[in-house]
Amino acid sequence: MSRDVFSSAQDLEKTIRESNEFNLLKTQYVKVFADESTKRMFEDFRTIQLNLQEKQMTGQPISEEEVQRAQQVVAVIQQNDEISRLLEAEQRMSTLIAEVNKIVMKPLEELYNEQMK
Amino acid sequence: MSRDVFSSAQDLEKTIRESNEFNLLKTQYVKVFADESTKRMFEDFRTIQLNLQEKQMTGQPISEEEVQRAQQVVAVIQQNDEISRLLEAEQRMSTLIAEVNKIVMKPLEELYNEQMK
Repeated sequence: MSRDVFSSAQDLEKTIRESNEFNLLKTQYVKVFADESTKRMFEDFRTIQLNLQEKQMTGQPISEEEVQRAQQVVAVIQQNDEISRLLEAEQRMSTLIAEVNKIVMKPLEELYNEQMK
Repeated sequence: MSRDVFSSAQDLEKTIRESNEFNLLKTQYVKVFADESTKRMFEDFRTIQLNLQEKQMTGQPISEEEVQRAQQVVAVIQQNDEISRLLEAEQRMSTLIAEVNKIVMKPLEELYNEQMK
């Protein structure tokens, strides 16, 4: 990796670390994980979510029971303000990362699009 | 997205565009795609490769015939210097992107690792 790429990647890392999106996410994680029951609720939700995502991606069947269990957990989660704020903060952070990636990957995207013409 | 993140993402985009890795890849794409038969050979290879990757990722079975066909195409590909150089250039570019991502994603990685403790 060239000096220039390395150094501009490090600058970007620093601005992300200092961004509102990242700091809101960090604050909200600390809040959710500070309370043992909120933490467990969030972790249950995350486990179910990742499990369903994996099944979807690998084309495995999802049972009616699993769907119901997920809906129950989501309903509970939505009642919890701190977890709701954490999910919102995660969403904003992931939008930021997607936007950053779109900018950074532009040279490659252009290159592939040119070849497809 | 803050001004700072936007501007540092753009700087990184510029350094990637000016990098040796990107320019080697671009040059090599143009070479491979300039010749109709080399281009077709490369596109056949890419189609087979993407198809196998998709099947692997979604857990679909890969037939003996598909494996043999892929091996034949790879054997032909490896005899072609321009395509071999293109694959090498792609490999280098993807290493660069992986290294950049590792740097840029450090704040998030640290945040998640802290929560897992």
